Amino acid sequence: MVLQKEVTNGLEWRIRVEDVSSETLVPAASLASRVWLGLKNMIVSLVLKVWRFLQKAWNLAVDEPRKVIHCLKVGIALTFVSLFYYMRPLYDGVGGNAMWAIMTVVVVFENTVGATISKSLNRICGTFLAGFLAIGVHWIASQSGDQLEPLIIGASVFILASAATFSRFIPSVKQRFDYGALIFILTFSLVTVSGYRVEKLFDLAHQRISTIIIGTTLCILVSMLICPIWAGKDLYNLIIRNMDKLANSLDGCVAEYFNHCGGFNESGEEAHKKILSYKCVLNTKATEESMANFARWEPAHGLFNFRHPWKQYLKIGASIRSCAYCIEALNSCINSENQGPAFVKNHLSNTCLKVSSTSSRVIKELANAIKTMKKSSTVELLVGEMNTAVKELQNDLKSLSGLCNPTQQSEAATPENKKTEKISKQMATIPLMGMISMVTFASLQIEIALRIESLVEAVEELGELAKFEHAENKPNLQPNIKVAPDEQRDEETVKTFQKV
Amino acid sequence: MVLQKEVTNGLEWRIRVEDVSSETLVPAASLASRVWLGLKNMIVSLVLKVWRFLQKAWNLAVDEPRKVIHCLKVGIALTFVSLFYYMRPLYDGVGGNAMWAIMTVVVVFENTVGATISKSLNRICGTFLAGFLAIGVHWIASQSGDQLEPLIIGASVFILASAATFSRFIPSVKQRFDYGALIFILTFSLVTVSGYRVEKLFDLAHQRISTIIIGTTLCILVSMLICPIWAGKDLYNLIIRNMDKLANSLDGCVAEYFNHCGGFNESGEEAHKKILSYKCVLNTKATEESMANFARWEPAHGLFNFRHPWKQYLKIGASIRSCAYCIEALNSCINSENQGPAFVKNHLSNTCLKVSSTSSRVIKELANAIKTMKKSSTVELLVGEMNTAVKELQNDLKSLSGLCNPTQQSEAATPENKKTEKISKQMATIPLMGMISMVTFASLQIEIALRIESLVEAVEELGELAKFEHAENKPNLQPNIKVAPDEQRDEETVKTFQKV
Repeated sequence: MVLQKEVTNGLEWRIRVEDVSSETLVPAASLASRVWLGLKNMIVSLVLKVWRFLQKAWNLAVDEPRKVIHCLKVGIALTFVSLFYYMRPLYDGVGGNAMWAIMTVVVVFENTVGATISKSLNRICGTFLAGFLAIGVHWIASQSGDQLEPLIIGASVFILASAATFSRFIPSVKQRFDYGALIFILTFSLVTVSGYRVEKLFDLAHQRISTIIIGTTLCILVSMLICPIWAGKDLYNLIIRNMDKLANSLDGCVAEYFNHCGGFNESGEEAHKKILSYKCVLNTKATEESMANFARWEPAHGLFNFRHPWKQYLKIGASIRSCAYCIEALNSCINSENQGPAFVKNHLSNTCLKVSSTSSRVIKELANAIKTMKKSSTVELLVGEMNTAVKELQNDLKSLSGLCNPTQQSEAATPENKKTEKISKQMATIPLMGMISMVTFASLQIEIALRIESLVEAVEELGELAKFEHAENKPNLQPNIKVAPDEQRDEETVKTFQKV
Repeated sequence: MVLQKEVTNGLEWRIRVEDVSSETLVPAASLASRVWLGLKNMIVSLVLKVWRFLQKAWNLAVDEPRKVIHCLKVGIALTFVSLFYYMRPLYDGVGGNAMWAIMTVVVVFENTVGATISKSLNRICGTFLAGFLAIGVHWIASQSGDQLEPLIIGASVFILASAATFSRFIPSVKQRFDYGALIFILTFSLVTVSGYRVEKLFDLAHQRISTIIIGTTLCILVSMLICPIWAGKDLYNLIIRNMDKLANSLDGCVAEYFNHCGGFNESGEEAHKKILSYKCVLNTKATEESMANFARWEPAHGLFNFRHPWKQYLKIGASIRSCAYCIEALNSCINSENQGPAFVKNHLSNTCLKVSSTSSRVIKELANAIKTMKKSSTVELLVGEMNTAVKELQNDLKSLSGLCNPTQQSEAATPENKKTEKISKQMATIPLMGMISMVTFASLQIEIALRIESLVEAVEELGELAKFEHAENKPNLQPNIKVAPDEQRDEETVKTFQKV
């Protein structure tokens, strides 16, 4: 039976394999060759998997060389700290505790300077505080006799570990001192408990603190001196990028609605990507918050002072998101079944495109103001233009609804009403359901313009807080102009666009 | 000069302080009493700050007793593992490495069972893999002579640490094995480097592995046996809660727009809170993803099997958010300046309220289906009702726009058109700008109803994947009915509402 089954299996195998590579097979395959084939297939699929994984990794590395640099930095810091084991005098200085330096480097070294500094300070403070407390508790315990000693130590570990764990749930602590609390628990437990065995507590504490300081200093130096990645600058770039995405999305969305993509000189797919780039903006809140949180630990760098108002970027981010939510709703109009009739669309398309182009110019000007860190001299003008366009759109909407209303038409013979009269004859014969999508689309655009004004306020507030200089007086009305181009930053922006 | 300044300062002090506690002050305060006062104020403000912090912590503890329980669990696990230091036979078994058990408990013990298991497995696998590799590298290095040894070890640390750090950037690795990669780097560096000094590498590795296994086992047992907090159940509760919030927000929003809050029997503030509860839904993507990620590690518990389709909850969450974005836009209509004229509002209010109530009933029914894990027998009926209401609203909108259009009116004398005729006389005299907000509001509601249908699909898909049973056949059309109420869960829901 078993043999028969094996033969059948063998046949099945042969049949399956013959499809792929019939020439390599001997008609009646021996057990060995079948095992070999199975192994070969397994290995091939494994190699393929690994190959695909490596390809993915390679693409990631090519897309973001900064990450590769970070990895090399970690390697450098770790190799450097390993030297402690090889150099006798240093090794003797800290005893067998050089381990803590390695551990510190592995655990503390983060992607951005701010995160590294924040973790370093947390680690040092947590260790210090816990060390002192633990030595105190240990001293008290050792004075209370053999019976009470383990009880006191056990109770103190229980109470302090519970309390410190709880503190990690409190938002203000969690935001800044989460890692410190963890290290506090760790150090306190290790020192109180190990103190029961090891007599040289102070020596141990001294060695541990010094190795940790060596490790953190090394991390901070490496992360700051070799191609530093600043959380603050990342946040700043993210906000600028998000603004650009928002502006492009808005433009693309309105152009798509009116099938008016010619102005963009882009293929359909690219235009579609552009439209959907607002989706990246929707879920960046957590990233922005953590970046702002790390940025505050960073020293002055590039354009930013030590006390740069990072929190204001969160407000700007929130404003950007609130616009993006509206674009989400706007985008759903594109796919709506009840598209407006062509001549109504034509009636509104010019003003709608005007509103979107002025709106996106405002956003781009704001992005530019943040990029150059100068108060924009043209933003007020652009906001004015946007508001004029919004008013025009409102008037057009009025004329659309008013055209069915004879009493209003007779009130005045403005050019608008003449335009209306032309359409009204066509109007009378078509179902008006399609207009609803148009009206929704237009009024969402008006809402977006409103929200952009609060974005303008947020950026102006940033200008006040960060003391932006005034830009030169020649107003520059071209959208998306690049002042003081930082090549790398632009490249990043382009790449992120491509990935969207 | 200094003295004079001090006196002036003193006077300033006295004046400031006299406002608060004038009786305790001697008219001409001596230096000592001034210092005392300053100290006292400092202490008072410090005590106040600490008091406020404690109050905040207390409120958090009262609001979420589960967090307190988690803290006590950490305390228990740590105290338990400390016993290793006190029990001779155990201590001798693992040598001085009992430290690693404590460390493991501190680092691995997470809030949810899934997170604890995931971290534990990561720690064990990372340590194993790195340990074996490190011993191999160490053996090769020790065979290559004194000159090459540190070079080989340094290079291997550099290369492997960089590679492992890079792997943490690859999304698929980051999602599941981030901590494992960290531990890999840590263990590999420690073992290769310390191997240069310590001869008994295998002993060290064995001890470390066994202490880590002891620590992780303890953590997993404590987190699973004492009031377990399941990431999966949390995700499930979050999704249900978010659906309830969405439904309430939608109801509240529409009621607020038509100033029709009577039906809710709530004060204005509460109604306002209800309306804004959708805001919580907007930014839960990251939370949902990490919960789903941890949930897959959890064994079967409560209603959930081991391979419960947690990923489907992410899809449902995305659907909920897409509805919430629309509610965001809807909400902006409430604050719009161009509110529609009263009689137009009256014309549409009934149908709008009908659409919102049927929509929210669908959402609540879906939430209920997930809650009871039974296929709803009424959801199709409710979706049908919602679609009927949407059709009615579309007809009403048509009649609103059509009423200005005499040719359409004469087409048929349906009751709708009669209703229209009544209004058309009033229409002729008012500006129609206000209608735009109305139309936008109504068509956003229609869009929400559309999106709810994709939510229905997502929930039905979950029902298929998780093999929901069919509910009993008696259709239950009352909204928000509680089947099999889990008291604690409901309490949580209420509390979350209160906090919104």
